[in-house]
Amino acid sequence: MSVPYVGISVRGARGAADLVAAVEREVKSGRIAAGCRLPPVRALEQQLGISKNTVLAAYDELVARGLLESREREGFFVSAREIIPRVAPWKEPPAARLKPPAPLPGRSTPGTLAISSVFIDADLLPRERLADCARSVLRNPGLEPFSDFQGYRPLREAIARRLQARGMDVHEGQVVTTTGSQQALDIIARSLDVRRASMESPVYPHARYLFEQHGLTLAGLPLDPFNGIDLADWEERLSTFRPGMVYAITSFQNPTGYSYTTSELVALLEMADRYGFALLEDDWGSDMLSGSEYRPSLRLLGGKNVIYVNSFTKKLLPSMRVGFLVASEDLIPSLVSAKRLSCLGHSWLSEATVAEFLDRGYYDSHLGALQKELDARYQACLAALSELMPEGVRWTTPGGGPTLWVDVPRSVDLGKLRQRCLKRNVLIEDASGAFLADRPLHGFRVSYAFAPAEKVRKGIQVIAEELWTR
Amino acid sequence: MSVPYVGISVRGARGAADLVAAVEREVKSGRIAAGCRLPPVRALEQQLGISKNTVLAAYDELVARGLLESREREGFFVSAREIIPRVAPWKEPPAARLKPPAPLPGRSTPGTLAISSVFIDADLLPRERLADCARSVLRNPGLEPFSDFQGYRPLREAIARRLQARGMDVHEGQVVTTTGSQQALDIIARSLDVRRASMESPVYPHARYLFEQHGLTLAGLPLDPFNGIDLADWEERLSTFRPGMVYAITSFQNPTGYSYTTSELVALLEMADRYGFALLEDDWGSDMLSGSEYRPSLRLLGGKNVIYVNSFTKKLLPSMRVGFLVASEDLIPSLVSAKRLSCLGHSWLSEATVAEFLDRGYYDSHLGALQKELDARYQACLAALSELMPEGVRWTTPGGGPTLWVDVPRSVDLGKLRQRCLKRNVLIEDASGAFLADRPLHGFRVSYAFAPAEKVRKGIQVIAEELWTR
Repeated sequence: MSVPYVGISVRGARGAADLVAAVEREVKSGRIAAGCRLPPVRALEQQLGISKNTVLAAYDELVARGLLESREREGFFVSAREIIPRVAPWKEPPAARLKPPAPLPGRSTPGTLAISSVFIDADLLPRERLADCARSVLRNPGLEPFSDFQGYRPLREAIARRLQARGMDVHEGQVVTTTGSQQALDIIARSLDVRRASMESPVYPHARYLFEQHGLTLAGLPLDPFNGIDLADWEERLSTFRPGMVYAITSFQNPTGYSYTTSELVALLEMADRYGFALLEDDWGSDMLSGSEYRPSLRLLGGKNVIYVNSFTKKLLPSMRVGFLVASEDLIPSLVSAKRLSCLGHSWLSEATVAEFLDRGYYDSHLGALQKELDARYQACLAALSELMPEGVRWTTPGGGPTLWVDVPRSVDLGKLRQRCLKRNVLIEDASGAFLADRPLHGFRVSYAFAPAEKVRKGIQVIAEELWTR
Repeated sequence: MSVPYVGISVRGARGAADLVAAVEREVKSGRIAAGCRLPPVRALEQQLGISKNTVLAAYDELVARGLLESREREGFFVSAREIIPRVAPWKEPPAARLKPPAPLPGRSTPGTLAISSVFIDADLLPRERLADCARSVLRNPGLEPFSDFQGYRPLREAIARRLQARGMDVHEGQVVTTTGSQQALDIIARSLDVRRASMESPVYPHARYLFEQHGLTLAGLPLDPFNGIDLADWEERLSTFRPGMVYAITSFQNPTGYSYTTSELVALLEMADRYGFALLEDDWGSDMLSGSEYRPSLRLLGGKNVIYVNSFTKKLLPSMRVGFLVASEDLIPSLVSAKRLSCLGHSWLSEATVAEFLDRGYYDSHLGALQKELDARYQACLAALSELMPEGVRWTTPGGGPTLWVDVPRSVDLGKLRQRCLKRNVLIEDASGAFLADRPLHGFRVSYAFAPAEKVRKGIQVIAEELWTR
């Protein structure tokens, strides 16, 4: 006990946390040098009038943080951490040659209205309930050390139950969880043993670039949401191009907002049979149906051979990154192997949190409340469009999902319109990446879900004014 | 208030949680049918002797869980959820054609000792401190709605600071977070605009399969950990094959446990310069250095053009799935674009939890304690090998990392040895996927980190006995 100790300025510290913060401040500022001994527990006990256990708890925490070292029978010391100076490189090797980045849209800057966003207003999302669920899984069962390669089993079970309730014959062994539906598409695209695929044009550009990055040759199936699918045209294209797979966004198609009719779904299944292509259904939108409306899906009508992709991303909280795919048992080993090669497995904490959220039954209640608000915003958006848009502008009426498509006369220069609107802090997303060859449309996505109705109205007003003055 | 209500069996419920559980049980068992009214709040208040607010809190939670509906001026009712019967498929389309799964090893079954595991005993990992950090970020700042595409900025900053302390010139803008280092490799492999790559043989098989899946042609650089790198042989191979990139695991190489010497690192940098290939360094092991030992890396000696990959996966908790890559600014747009196409972004909660863990300074303290235990296990493993292994068996002495390589005489049939050991509940991982063409070795990985020393000793004893009796 003969080692001298330094005085530290921790006046007013009442609990262990105060004491930890005070010592950390002193050490990091350099006012107490490495190797110095801290006051003995008893000294602080008297000085601050707090209990011995509180002081000890604070010192233990500081040891865990690496700021102090405990030496037997000597006390607590400021630890000496070696800092290695930065070294100049010895010999620079050549830089790696990478492919250029895909032309993906950036995030909007603060103060700008991202009028084309497919995301839902974060104020409508259940952040507190999700945090509750996370706290609950941290207590019970506590952090699991390993992730299941295929996905956390209770989550896969909860997903299967939800799909069963929609009439699909699905069990947990057919479900693979993914980092949002984007990774579901990635895992499928990288596993495919086919060279050609078809998809709607316009289509979700991230899917298009993804399939292209994996070396597939793509052909578009023109989708005019104002007139429905031209099945004869699609059949001619599919019978000529002979894709190995067709990717279809069947509900609230991104970016048009179009939903396939039952007879279009059936016709696509018949063509799949006739021309021997597999089907990949992206069902991102069907949880955003208004009220109790019921809509079939390719997976429902076509059974287990249809690969099905969906996600909780938009509806729960994008940062949770929980999506999934469903495929027949035969395909699961290849898909899980592809998932393992791409990332081994996912954040257990995210998956367990979403599983808890589903298990408590929060999801349907949340969707119900969310949809009520989205319906009101949708009606307000339609009213604003009717009132403000000039002649010749038309828009889709999806009746669900977060966005609709606004189509403008071909004489409008979309690039200039975007620039003029951006100057007025309204960001219209460039949709040109969504089109494969054919361009049945000339316009952009408008969201009614990302911002309150009055903000969306103001955005529409800006666009309308810039359209008038072109 | 005239609607009749059902009696429910909630005897003994003292708090809101009890009441929620009791009503949930009654509803899910079907004992209370949809549409039934629950007892009025006042009735339960009197029946159970708990406060009105407690009953209301329980009813509100049950509404959030979708089990009850609240009807104004009428009370709480069991909600009627429509269950759609499962539908038989209308028309089955063809199944998708997928590539066969890569021959990845499975997970060991309970009761089996995974003697080749590269993972660290979960009992040595800071599960409680990580849970603390997760709870802390759930409170403050609370769940963020969106993930940063490049990775949570405070985490990227903490990573950059750690690398700076090791002498590397790195800033947060050069860091991209990933789902473990596996996804870092995936993002790099899918971005590469080169056709050929070289890597050590044997090598981490997941990396080999990954590069192959992305269409790269690979050539091996034979690595004999007992004799070091044959630089003349490597130079001949590299000057002939002319890869666009060389992938190197420079510390505690997986699976051999070999660490490059400084002169080998320098020689590789010189060859990169001479033959124009880029370098990808997988530094998974250097956080598992014993004591205060210091070891340079390719990134340190070669500067920013060396792409660098590392992870917290093994050292913190595999299920957190937090890894990262570091590359020069020029390459970041392509790499972030590839990350967005593969998964958009990561679980914010996992990233923020690890950032908090680093920020509190827990990581170095944890590594210090971990390494002390691993050193003891390593010594015990070496002692067991010396004592038990028959003549002609040799092993590497990595001095760090979780595993070493045991090499047996060529006359040993490794497949049969694996089978005989598995019958005795010792799982030796098949290393054949680790070799590209050349096979400088004949053996398998032995872990001293995955299980306590006495278990590892028993596993070694089983292997030794099966080797004796061949």
